[in-house]
Amino acid sequence: MFLVEGAKSVVELLSSPFDIKTLIATEVFLKDHNQAISFLKGKTEVLAAEEATLSSLSSFKNNNAAIAAVEMPVLPPLTAAPDEYMLVLDHISDPGNLGTLVRIADWYGIRKIVCSPETTDVYSPKVIHASMGSFLRVQVYYIDLPAFVSGAGLTVYGTFPGRGESVHTAAFGRGGLLVLGNEAEGISLSLEAYVSRHLWIPKYGEAESLNVAVAAAIICDNVRRSAAKQS
Amino acid sequence: MFLVEGAKSVVELLSSPFDIKTLIATEVFLKDHNQAISFLKGKTEVLAAEEATLSSLSSFKNNNAAIAAVEMPVLPPLTAAPDEYMLVLDHISDPGNLGTLVRIADWYGIRKIVCSPETTDVYSPKVIHASMGSFLRVQVYYIDLPAFVSGAGLTVYGTFPGRGESVHTAAFGRGGLLVLGNEAEGISLSLEAYVSRHLWIPKYGEAESLNVAVAAAIICDNVRRSAAKQS
Repeated sequence: MFLVEGAKSVVELLSSPFDIKTLIATEVFLKDHNQAISFLKGKTEVLAAEEATLSSLSSFKNNNAAIAAVEMPVLPPLTAAPDEYMLVLDHISDPGNLGTLVRIADWYGIRKIVCSPETTDVYSPKVIHASMGSFLRVQVYYIDLPAFVSGAGLTVYGTFPGRGESVHTAAFGRGGLLVLGNEAEGISLSLEAYVSRHLWIPKYGEAESLNVAVAAAIICDNVRRSAAKQS
Repeated sequence: MFLVEGAKSVVELLSSPFDIKTLIATEVFLKDHNQAISFLKGKTEVLAAEEATLSSLSSFKNNNAAIAAVEMPVLPPLTAAPDEYMLVLDHISDPGNLGTLVRIADWYGIRKIVCSPETTDVYSPKVIHASMGSFLRVQVYYIDLPAFVSGAGLTVYGTFPGRGESVHTAAFGRGGLLVLGNEAEGISLSLEAYVSRHLWIPKYGEAESLNVAVAAAIICDNVRRSAAKQS
């Protein structure tokens, strides 16, 4: 199981197919969301608590609304359709970055993220919080990346500083794998071997690099815009 | 004064015009950067320390290299050239977001960020760390935003969900103010009154919103790309 904390995420959770084992919330929250909660009856333990109790249970400093213990979803087998984009995360170590990446995927209509086993746990409280509810809609897999990437049958895009095609002019295909590397080390050599299209993000100033989630967002924005132009 | 921590930031600091009052570093770091450090002599107190001492001084969990106490820079008076873009931050509260925004500004050649007084302190350790050295090149001002924005003589762009011009098709001028709002509340009403161009970021999925730094990066990428196309 994993924890979902705070009003906003728990409200989204209530209208999702996720299996909530326990919901602990203030009387106010329970009353405000009475209808959604009534659909849970039987399969969910619902408990009222004071704010102080909630905050002490929560990984947040202050939690004035709700916390839920949720069953981890069973993911369908990982398949790659030819017209689908996925994020491929090679050892993302910061939970805030992973949560933000899940949120970006959800914004850009990317339904699957494939992570190396070393990538930080998507079910940790910080990741769930940073994803702002998007963990409900994006499937996150942890598998051996070289094996997956080499067999997926999709174009493999990777970003490298200053070499390859500019994301502003690259023609992106209908589907592909967007590989993003570790915050400090970038894409590992064992995975780089499978990257068939090298991309770079045009730079107009002096920063050495961009945050990995920021880079992912810029790539996704250019991928979707390129597809819209071609269709 | 403020703290700069960790090898990467301190190395960039050493080649900047910032005034370092005290540098505390491991023997290894002092030896590796001997030449840069020799230029500081006289005006900087340089001390060697063990890793354990550095970590106990640092706001990082582990600091195995260096920490510096730096004089806050005196900024030149804030002016706005007609061909210049600036970020305008209306109550950004998360230090990680502010640091990432400084880094994004630096990547996109934006040299000035103008913040509301409520925006989190750019000289706090978390912001400095997240900016990855970009605090050395971007000037960050704290002033009354409605007064500045109304008198700057630049087009004022603001992002709002689903209304206005798409950033993919908007024609951006030579200069402008890019207003970004608080993480939860967005742009305040008192500032929104001065926004003359309403922008939105096209969405292809279901996330309710994007992280503020991610949104800023996508806007900057589209601004620079639009300018390149026009010239």
